[in-house]
Amino acid sequence: MENLQQILVSRPTSLSDGPSLDNFRLVSSPLPALAEGEALVRNHYLSLDPYMRGRMMAGKSYTAPHPLGEVMIGGTAGVVLDSRHPDFEIGCHVVGDGGWQQYSVLSTDAPMPWRRIDPHQLPMSTHLGVTGLPGVTAWYGINRICLPRKGETVVVSAASGAVGSVAGQLARGAGCRVIGLAGGSEKCRVVTGEYGFDACIDYKAHPDLDTLSQALADAAPDGIDAYFDNVGGLLLDAVLGRMNPAGRIAVCGALTRFNDHLHPMHNLSAILTARLRLQGFVIGEHLDLWAAAAQELIQGVTTGQIRYRETIAHGIAAAPQAFLGLLRGRNIGKQLVQLT
Amino acid sequence: MENLQQILVSRPTSLSDGPSLDNFRLVSSPLPALAEGEALVRNHYLSLDPYMRGRMMAGKSYTAPHPLGEVMIGGTAGVVLDSRHPDFEIGCHVVGDGGWQQYSVLSTDAPMPWRRIDPHQLPMSTHLGVTGLPGVTAWYGINRICLPRKGETVVVSAASGAVGSVAGQLARGAGCRVIGLAGGSEKCRVVTGEYGFDACIDYKAHPDLDTLSQALADAAPDGIDAYFDNVGGLLLDAVLGRMNPAGRIAVCGALTRFNDHLHPMHNLSAILTARLRLQGFVIGEHLDLWAAAAQELIQGVTTGQIRYRETIAHGIAAAPQAFLGLLRGRNIGKQLVQLT
Repeated sequence: MENLQQILVSRPTSLSDGPSLDNFRLVSSPLPALAEGEALVRNHYLSLDPYMRGRMMAGKSYTAPHPLGEVMIGGTAGVVLDSRHPDFEIGCHVVGDGGWQQYSVLSTDAPMPWRRIDPHQLPMSTHLGVTGLPGVTAWYGINRICLPRKGETVVVSAASGAVGSVAGQLARGAGCRVIGLAGGSEKCRVVTGEYGFDACIDYKAHPDLDTLSQALADAAPDGIDAYFDNVGGLLLDAVLGRMNPAGRIAVCGALTRFNDHLHPMHNLSAILTARLRLQGFVIGEHLDLWAAAAQELIQGVTTGQIRYRETIAHGIAAAPQAFLGLLRGRNIGKQLVQLT
Repeated sequence: MENLQQILVSRPTSLSDGPSLDNFRLVSSPLPALAEGEALVRNHYLSLDPYMRGRMMAGKSYTAPHPLGEVMIGGTAGVVLDSRHPDFEIGCHVVGDGGWQQYSVLSTDAPMPWRRIDPHQLPMSTHLGVTGLPGVTAWYGINRICLPRKGETVVVSAASGAVGSVAGQLARGAGCRVIGLAGGSEKCRVVTGEYGFDACIDYKAHPDLDTLSQALADAAPDGIDAYFDNVGGLLLDAVLGRMNPAGRIAVCGALTRFNDHLHPMHNLSAILTARLRLQGFVIGEHLDLWAAAAQELIQGVTTGQIRYRETIAHGIAAAPQAFLGLLRGRNIGKQLVQLT
């Protein structure tokens, strides 16, 4: 059997020069023999996430650059085809960092532990999205940093995305007024209509600080108590200007730092004047909370309290194009590649 | 008896248009009669502090604007001359918000409570500086936000000032390598020679991000674990670029936001990549900690572990000029006006 893989062969050359298709090369490799303690996984879904862009860069980030010439990193969900591992028998369903390839070798010494998933509870793909990395990321930012209290106003950027959609629904579950920021009227309709946010601002319709600030003032007449920031830049600046005293900001992503990292911040002094707390975080440093958070999210999805959307590309060959689409915001909800 | 007072008669018109002498007017008023529960205080020292600039502005800050036509707000230390208050007998030494005037009426319903001070322990002026508002501010930022651990590197801006000098000495007492940022070689000599910082960078000699970042890299070869920020702007940007993972930043002041609030921040994404915590604070919201903090600072000064400097102007007529000097960084250590 052959294993189709996407190899990282080159890097974006600068922050403003985004990834391109020729950073990846599709290759076919033979499947390796299993050693003791390993299992062979047929990957059904590959997760595409914004953090991958950081891993493609050579520069300093919160993790080391991904090595050139190796299979691109990525979360996968699949089924064990063959096993020499006592805990993962043939046929069991698993999630782990399988990478951009059709088959992966599961081993116990992976940096992110492989986990069994219940094949009867929820669709396999959800373990890469609403109850997986993005969902748990949202859970941490909301429950450990934003600390929403009933009656408060919470803003979430990239609100239609895999992280933002869960963050907003968790804040709403806590009894808050929740306002999304999303790019385009179609996404905004999903954010309010499907995810149940109280309001959604199309930031593309408010491309400067003045109009975006006014839109926030209209949507959040009592000010903003917490902000789940997936974006940085202009959106962060506008939210800062509307923050209430003792507000909390979870800094989860900064997609725009690649394109917009020199947005001149007008409202940074709000950190002092409103005594704000900003906290950056990376969920990989809080794996001890994963099981409890995932269980809570599974419960929320099962009962219908948390809803999700997926955008699915098909075939490992389509992964690079789908990834570029993700970085350009072409997806709604979780971006996946189906590999079967 | 007449009471010479400085009245706020106009405001700076914009963020970039600083206060000027004609915002104040010196007037002479008769002393009021004391009501029951009041005492008359002869102010010996008036404290001048950067926060006063914010109170002069009409715009939104963490406190309401100071009303026009009233005596300018400010901390004072003095001696009770006459009393109808059971807790403050004639001759006792007190600190409180006496304002820019020679005599004040102490009353129990003041927003900042008047406190008795020990006339034998330390000079009266220290209760407005190293063991007063600036000292307690430094104590809070260091002990509640920066959380320095032995062997870490801590950076303090405005390091020769009343707050920064104490912040750095507290961090050094915790076993940290402490680096100051100060404006000019004379201030830097005080910071290292007198306050015992391990190093001090003259930021005026490094007026751009590249050279300031390099100076920080040289002084903090192991990166920066905590930053006590009195300044914001370019200095914050440069420090952000050198922060170690899980670093803490206490945002205490933002003097430069008035002059330099549009510095384009290059390193804000470090909040995410280094998982930083930034926390703005105003000491007036933490008065419950005051007594314990002040006691610890008094102990530090008494034993010589904490050293301080004062810059003293003379006479209430000199207060506006001394205040403008403070905003331009002309003082070293605590800026006071002696009123006797």
